[in-house]
Formats: sequence, C-alpha cells, structure tokens
Amino acid sequence: MQLVLIRHGESEANFQNYWTGWLDVPLTSKGRLQAQQAGEKIKSAKIEFDQAYTSVLQRSLITCQKVLESCDQLWIPTEKTWRLNERHYGALVGKNKDEMKRQFGAEQVKRWRRGFYQLPPFVEQNHFDRRYAHLDPSLLPKGESLALTLARVLPLWQDQLAPALVEGKNLLVVGHGNSLRALVKYLEEIPDDDVDQIDIPNATPVLYEFTKDLQIKHKILL
Amino acid sequence: MQLVLIRHGESEANFQNYWTGWLDVPLTSKGRLQAQQAGEKIKSAKIEFDQAYTSVLQRSLITCQKVLESCDQLWIPTEKTWRLNERHYGALVGKNKDEMKRQFGAEQVKRWRRGFYQLPPFVEQNHFDRRYAHLDPSLLPKGESLALTLARVLPLWQDQLAPALVEGKNLLVVGHGNSLRALVKYLEEIPDDDVDQIDIPNATPVLYEFTKDLQIKHKILL
Repeated sequence: MQLVLIRHGESEANFQNYWTGWLDVPLTSKGRLQAQQAGEKIKSAKIEFDQAYTSVLQRSLITCQKVLESCDQLWIPTEKTWRLNERHYGALVGKNKDEMKRQFGAEQVKRWRRGFYQLPPFVEQNHFDRRYAHLDPSLLPKGESLALTLARVLPLWQDQLAPALVEGKNLLVVGHGNSLRALVKYLEEIPDDDVDQIDIPNATPVLYEFTKDLQIKHKILL
Repeated sequence: MQLVLIRHGESEANFQNYWTGWLDVPLTSKGRLQAQQAGEKIKSAKIEFDQAYTSVLQRSLITCQKVLESCDQLWIPTEKTWRLNERHYGALVGKNKDEMKRQFGAEQVKRWRRGFYQLPPFVEQNHFDRRYAHLDPSLLPKGESLALTLARVLPLWQDQLAPALVEGKNLLVVGHGNSLRALVKYLEEIPDDDVDQIDIPNATPVLYEFTKDLQIKHKILL
C-alpha cells in the first residue's frame, strides 16, 4: 500500500520562470535527467508498482516514462488523465513571474500563487487541442484556485487511487506542483491557511505508506 | 478508420542476430532514432490517433513512446498488452541464428523462422517476472508457432482493435516482427503457405484504411 508522488522534472517554464498551467511545455534536458534519477531512487528503494498515473501534459508524461524506464517497470499500466494536470493559471499563463511582481506587487503575486481559494484572472477563451475534446465542456476551466484544482483531482483519488491502495496495490502518481500540492493538502489534512507551506520539489519521489484503513503510516522523501 | 502497425526499432538482438522472443532486450540508439523518425512520418501524414497499443517488452514500449512523442500525441491512451509480445521462440531464445544454421542447417532454421505451424523446441521452464503474474498460467507459452502467436494476438483484434475501428477511431499498434506478421496474415487473409513472404521492417509505419464493414480499402507503407 505504497503511494509515490513525483512532480515532473524541470520544464522550460520552470527554467524561464513563467506560469504554464495547461500549456504543454517540454522538459529541459536537466528535467529528463532528474526524472531518470528519480527512477533510480525508486529502484534502490525496491518499490514495485502495480499502476501508474500521469497528467496529459508532456512534462509529466515524459517524467513518468523516464521514471518507469529507469526502475525497469516500463510495462506497468499507465493512465493518462487531465485530472492530474497543473492548476490552470488563467490569464497568468505565459506571464513571467518577476514581470508580474513588478506590475502588481509581490504580495498580489504571492496570493495568486499560494492562497487556497485565490483565483487567477480568467482567460476569455481557451484554445485547447483535441486531448480535451471528450470532456464535458463545463469541466474545462478558464482559471483555477488551488481549491478548484483539488476539486478535480479528488475524483481520481476517490474513484481510482484509494480503491487501488485498499486492494493492496502500489501506485505511482506523476503530476505537477499544484495538482500534487492539492492532493497532499487533502491527504495530510493541512488547513487552508497553511497550504503555502506545501512545496513539492521537481522529480523528488514522495513515498506514503498507508494502513489498511488508509491512514498515513509514514511519509518519506526518497 | 486508420490502423497503423509499427514494428519496434532495431534492438540489441536484431543487431547481434539472436532470437529474443519474450526476452526484454533494449533498443539500440539507432533503434530509438528509427522510432523517432517513424513518428515524424506519422506527423507528416497528419494521422491523429485515438488509442495506442504496445507489447509489454521495452523495445516496443519505448518505440511507442518515441513515435507518440515525435508526432506530438504523447497524451494518447496507451494499452500495454502481452498479446502483442514477440512470438515466444522457446529454447531458441538467446541462440545466435548463424550458429544454429551451422548446427542444424539453413533449411531447419528457415522452417523454425518462417513456417506457420512450425513449433520451436520448447523451454523446460520459463523465468518470467511479475509482469505476467496476473495471467492464467496456461496462457504462458513454452514456445510458439506463428499460428499460436496469431491465436493469442487475435483476441486483441476481436475485442479491442476491430470494435474501436468500427467506431471510427484511428489506432496505433506497436509490436514485433512476428506478432505483427500474424496480424497481417489474418487481416490480409494470406494463405498459411505464404506467410514466409510477410516481412515487417523495423520502425516503418504500415497504414491500413478500412471501409465501414472492416474491409481493407488500402495499405500504404509510410
């Protein structure tokens, strides 16, 4: 009953310090290497997965592949789901974080980034490709708070992750800074006001072990 | 209603000319490049997949990933199934083909490789890892003819590929020289005696377009 969370490796956007949200930016070569190293840690820890989950964004998809490849578990069934996508940062997407600090002040930028209920300014219209075409359009956000991000991550936990853990399976979940922060907030029952203290570093496996009734036994950073 | 078959890129075993079957040998760097180029051909042909399928062997898994990555469709749902594994070559696995020609004669080796019903000598015992642990043990072969390979590929066609094509979906199937030969024999209704003429080159996309009642409209090598 092990759950390993891994945030994708360094992306072009992490490197250039702008908001991405659902923009499908590539990993840097450092990011690919980080993912491979995360897989080697999994291998050293002798964790054997039964199922993997990743977002539908390439920085997470490739991280997941690299992790599984370097721990020799590439054959593990892998579900690609939009529910693990990064928080949709609305009209902030593509904007440089330092630039926005100059424009709106550090406090406002901090609220956008770290408040639980704080919404970003919305986009007027999304330009999604066909990967989201099968979804109820009302599910597609124009901007999300961390609370809204959690609301759409949660069904994945409730319907898939939790039942699989209860069955005794070991799971790998590869996602993004905020989709994983949301999940961690929920799992660890962190108060709304303290979510700014949750930080998930790139490509660092976070291992949770659960009791049979899904209480956290311990949490280890690999 | 497009079906694209791709045999994995060059593997270490292709390069060293020995039988692999279900041995999980890596791609060569040439093989990885071939897979990327196959994806570029898919991209040029503007084929948009709805679903991908690959064997559970890394030469096919990585080829599938590289193909999807280089045609910008990494997010496509991908099923990893043992039914697309290479033909299990029994006791020939790990043996060099030239060496066996010297030992048993070119005719015998040709029969092993190219006859439809010809069985290889069986292994006494398989040493499979946990990726096959969920299967009915009676499904696990000790050696397969091409006919037996077809018998276990066919349920994938009947239960998943054909229904998805009938629904109008476009499918990518990444597999091996013999699992794909078996499927091609079935799709093109090639007589048993002529199966030795089917050759699937590494990492060359074979595109089939079907009519609504699943007749082949045309076949194009990309």
